[in-house]
Amino acid sequence: MDIIRNRLVTLAYSDKPKSDEHVVPNGQAAGKNKKKLILNAFIESCSGHQSPGLWQHPDDRSSGFNDIEHWVDLAKLLEKAKIHGIFIADVLGGYDVYEDSLDPAIRSAAQWPVNEPLAVVTAMTAATKTIGVGATVATTYEQPYHLARRLSTIDHLSKGRFGWNIVTGYLDSAARNLIGKEQPQHADRYTVAEEYMKVMYKLFQSSWRDDAVVRDAKRSMYSDPDRIRTIDHDGEFYKVPGPHICQPSPQRTPLLLQAGTSKSGKLFAAQHAEAIFVLGHSPSVVKDNIAEIRLIAKEKFGRDPNNLKFLTMFCPVLGRTEEEAQAKFEDYIQYGSKEGALALFGGWTGMDLGPYGDDEELRQTESNAIKSAVESLSRAAPGVEKWTKNTVARLIMIGGMGATVVGTPAHVADEMQRWVDEADVDGFNMPYAIFPSSFEDICNTLVPELQSRGVFHNEYEVPGGTYRENFYGKTGQKQPLDEHVASKYRWRAGVPKSEARSPV
Amino acid sequence: MDIIRNRLVTLAYSDKPKSDEHVVPNGQAAGKNKKKLILNAFIESCSGHQSPGLWQHPDDRSSGFNDIEHWVDLAKLLEKAKIHGIFIADVLGGYDVYEDSLDPAIRSAAQWPVNEPLAVVTAMTAATKTIGVGATVATTYEQPYHLARRLSTIDHLSKGRFGWNIVTGYLDSAARNLIGKEQPQHADRYTVAEEYMKVMYKLFQSSWRDDAVVRDAKRSMYSDPDRIRTIDHDGEFYKVPGPHICQPSPQRTPLLLQAGTSKSGKLFAAQHAEAIFVLGHSPSVVKDNIAEIRLIAKEKFGRDPNNLKFLTMFCPVLGRTEEEAQAKFEDYIQYGSKEGALALFGGWTGMDLGPYGDDEELRQTESNAIKSAVESLSRAAPGVEKWTKNTVARLIMIGGMGATVVGTPAHVADEMQRWVDEADVDGFNMPYAIFPSSFEDICNTLVPELQSRGVFHNEYEVPGGTYRENFYGKTGQKQPLDEHVASKYRWRAGVPKSEARSPV
Repeated sequence: MDIIRNRLVTLAYSDKPKSDEHVVPNGQAAGKNKKKLILNAFIESCSGHQSPGLWQHPDDRSSGFNDIEHWVDLAKLLEKAKIHGIFIADVLGGYDVYEDSLDPAIRSAAQWPVNEPLAVVTAMTAATKTIGVGATVATTYEQPYHLARRLSTIDHLSKGRFGWNIVTGYLDSAARNLIGKEQPQHADRYTVAEEYMKVMYKLFQSSWRDDAVVRDAKRSMYSDPDRIRTIDHDGEFYKVPGPHICQPSPQRTPLLLQAGTSKSGKLFAAQHAEAIFVLGHSPSVVKDNIAEIRLIAKEKFGRDPNNLKFLTMFCPVLGRTEEEAQAKFEDYIQYGSKEGALALFGGWTGMDLGPYGDDEELRQTESNAIKSAVESLSRAAPGVEKWTKNTVARLIMIGGMGATVVGTPAHVADEMQRWVDEADVDGFNMPYAIFPSSFEDICNTLVPELQSRGVFHNEYEVPGGTYRENFYGKTGQKQPLDEHVASKYRWRAGVPKSEARSPV
Repeated sequence: MDIIRNRLVTLAYSDKPKSDEHVVPNGQAAGKNKKKLILNAFIESCSGHQSPGLWQHPDDRSSGFNDIEHWVDLAKLLEKAKIHGIFIADVLGGYDVYEDSLDPAIRSAAQWPVNEPLAVVTAMTAATKTIGVGATVATTYEQPYHLARRLSTIDHLSKGRFGWNIVTGYLDSAARNLIGKEQPQHADRYTVAEEYMKVMYKLFQSSWRDDAVVRDAKRSMYSDPDRIRTIDHDGEFYKVPGPHICQPSPQRTPLLLQAGTSKSGKLFAAQHAEAIFVLGHSPSVVKDNIAEIRLIAKEKFGRDPNNLKFLTMFCPVLGRTEEEAQAKFEDYIQYGSKEGALALFGGWTGMDLGPYGDDEELRQTESNAIKSAVESLSRAAPGVEKWTKNTVARLIMIGGMGATVVGTPAHVADEMQRWVDEADVDGFNMPYAIFPSSFEDICNTLVPELQSRGVFHNEYEVPGGTYRENFYGKTGQKQPLDEHVASKYRWRAGVPKSEARSPV
C-alpha cells in the first residue's frame, strides 16, 4: 500500500452523495459506461485486514487464516459467483509507528500476525477451476532468481491462474529484519525494482524457448539445450547468469498487478502493471491518477490505455433494505478498534497520532504533515466538524482508506457505476468487513444485481483458462499482450538461439 | 546431498550379498532388531530425480511434476499405506560440472528443470489427514526472518505436518545466481548455518509465548503484548530484531531433517537433526557415521542417541518373483541416461568425468580425487573389473548413490532388516525408479510384507496428528523433545516476559 502515503497528500474532496440519493429502482441506474467489471476479493493472511477490530464481531471468522480450509472454502465461494480473482495483500513487518510501539497492532490484530501469502495458492487453485489468485511479494527482500522460481512454480501448479502484485515494501519494521536497516528511500526502491523486473522478464520470458521441453525419448532429449540460454544479467544491483531453473509456465509471466501513485510508482505502473490498484474515498480522488497513468502508458510505453485495468478498493456493506444495511454497518463498527485503525494509519502514512489527546483538534497541531493529511481526510468526510483521533479511526475502521458503501445491492451497484463513469475504473478490489459473510453478501446479492444490469459476466469468459485470459476476456491470451514490455523478452517457438534477444 | 561429496571418500567395501542369497521364505527372516521402521518417500520437484533418463520409460509419469494433481495423488497413495512422510529434495541450480556444461543435464532432465518444493505442500496436506511432508530449504540463500515466516505458515496450514530439511547448498551454479559468487567453503557455510538456526529457534520458539493469542473480545485483545517479545538477535552474520510475525504453529519448529556426514555436518546433525538422511550402497558404509553422530549427540548435546532417527536412501525394485523383479530392473535400466548419471555425479562430487574416454580405466587417471572416488565405488561393486564412465553411470542410474535392491517383497524386507541390524538405521528414504509405479509397488507389496513381520505399523500412531507425533509415535509430542536444543528457546505458557530466556 505504498499508494497510501502519497494518497493522503492528494486526497480530493469527497463527492460521495448521501446514501438516500442512491435508492433507485433495481436495474434502472445504468451509467453511461456499460463496461464489464472486473471483480476481485481483497484479503490478507491475517485477521481483520482492512477492518481492524472486527474480529470481535460474533459472526467474524477471519481468525481462521491459519487453516487451509479457510482459503479453500473462500476460493470455492467466490468462484461460484464468477469473481475474477482473489488478491492476497501482504506486509513483512508490524505496524509500529502509532505510539512508537507494536502493542496497539498486537492487541487489535491490525495486520498482525501475518502469514506468507504464497503458501495457500496451490491449495486454492487445486480446489477450483478458473478463479485467479494474486499475491503481493516485495522485490526488496529476496533475490530475483529465487523469486522467479517461486512464482513460476505457482504459475505451473495453478495452471496459469496466478498473479503477482509487485511492491517494494513500505514498513521500516520489515526492512530492519530483512536488510538490517531502515527501508531505502522510495525513489531508490523503484530504481532497484526496475532492474529487478528486467531480471524477472529475462528469466520468465527469454531464458527458455516456448518449445524448449520436447520430451522426445527417441532422441533421448527431455529439454533441448539449443532452446535454453543463460541470461547473463550483470546490472547495478543484480548479477544473475541464469538460466531460469523452471520451464515456461502457462502464463510465463504471472499476471502483473501493482499499486502505486507516487511519481515513480506511476511510471512503474504505466510500464509494467496489467492491473492497478487505486484507492480513495471517492472517485474524484483517483480519477486524475488513472488518467495520468493511462496517458503515460500510451505515450511513453506504447500501450493501449484501455489495457491497463484499474481496480479501486471498495468495501460494500449490503442489506435487503437501506435500513438493514445501515443497521448492519452500525452493528459492525461498534466492534472496530480505534487503536487498530490508528496503528494501520501510522504504518500507511508514517504519522504517529499517539501524542495527541483524544479530543484534540488535529487541524490545529504543529505538524504540517498531520494537518495536511487530516485536511485531505476532511475532504472525504466534509460533514465532520472536529477532526480527532476518533474521527480518523472511524473513517478507516471498515474498509481502510478505500470507499465503504452501505446499502442495498441496487444502491451499491449504482455507486460502482458512478466510479466507472466518474473515475474510469475497470473494476473493484473488495475487502471484507466481516469474514466471510461480507463475501457471501457480495456473491449472493451484489453479483446477481450487477449481472442483471449486464455489467458483470454470467460465466467466466474462458472457463478453466488462465488468470490473464479471464482478466482480458480473451481466449488464448495466456501470456502478456504483445504491446507489453514482457513480450519484448519472449523467446518464441521457432526462433534460433542465435537470434533470441532481450532488451538491454 | 552435501553428504555425497564426503561419502565418496569414505565409501566402504560392499558387503551386499548376491541377490539369490536373499530368497528366504516370507516372514522367516526376522532380524535381531525388531524396531518399527520409519518409511519416507523421496522425491524432488523434477522429472527422474535419482533415476536419470527413466522418464523415457513408457510407464513413467515423473514429468507430471508441474501439475498439482501429481502431488496430491501421490500424497493420497502413500497415506493409504501409512507411509510416515514425503520428503521433497531440492537444488537451486543445475548440474553443470560434467563436460563443464549444463547441456547433459538439460538433455537428460537430470534434476533439471526443478520447481520450488514448498509450493506443493499445503495442497498435499489439505487432501490428506496424517502423512507428513518435508522439504529441503537452504540456509545460504534467503534471510532467516523471511524463511521463518514461510515455514511457520506451512506448519500452520498443514496442521503441524511439515518438516524442514536443513541444507547449506552445494552447487556453485546456485550460488552464482543467488549470492553472485561461488559457493562459500563448506566449513564456513556451517558456521553461518549455526547462527541461522539460532535465529530460527528464537523466532519459532521464543518470540511468542505458547498462549500469546488470546482472542478475548471482552478485553479487546487478540494477542497479548506481554506475551510477545522481540528477539534482538545481533550476530556475526544476521541482525534480526523480530518479533516473529507468525503466531506459534502446531509444531512451533517443524520436524528437523538433515543430511551431512562431513565433520561439520555431523556436529550440526548431532545437535539439530531429528531425522538424518544417510546413503551408501551397503550398511557398512553408513554404520560408522551413524554410530559417531549418535555418540556426539549424547556426549556433546545430551540427547538420547535413540531419538536421532537415521533414514538411509533405499530404492526397491519389486516383483512377485525374483525373476520378475530382475526383469523389471533390466527393463528400467535400458532407459537410464549415462550422461544424466554423470551430470549428477559431477554435481554431487565436483568431479568431471567428461575428459575421459568411454573405455578409459578411471583407476589409471592422473586425478587422485577421481581415483579415490572410483576406488570407493569399486568397493560397492566388487565384481566390476574395469571402471569406466559407463560403470560409474550404471551404478548410480537407478537410485543414485543409495542402495538399489531388486527382488520380491520378502527379499527386499530382508535387506531392509539387514540395514537395521548392521547399520542401526531407523528407516528408509525411498526414491522411485519409475513414477508412480515404484511407489505403488512399495505400498501394495512391500508395506504388507513389513506389516506381516511386525516391523511397520498397521495404522499411524497418531492419526490426524502432527508429523513429529507420528515420527516419534508419541501422542502430544507436537514440539521438539525436551532434550532438543530448540526446547531451550521455548517460551512456555505461564512464564512472565521478564523471565523468558533464550540461550545466547
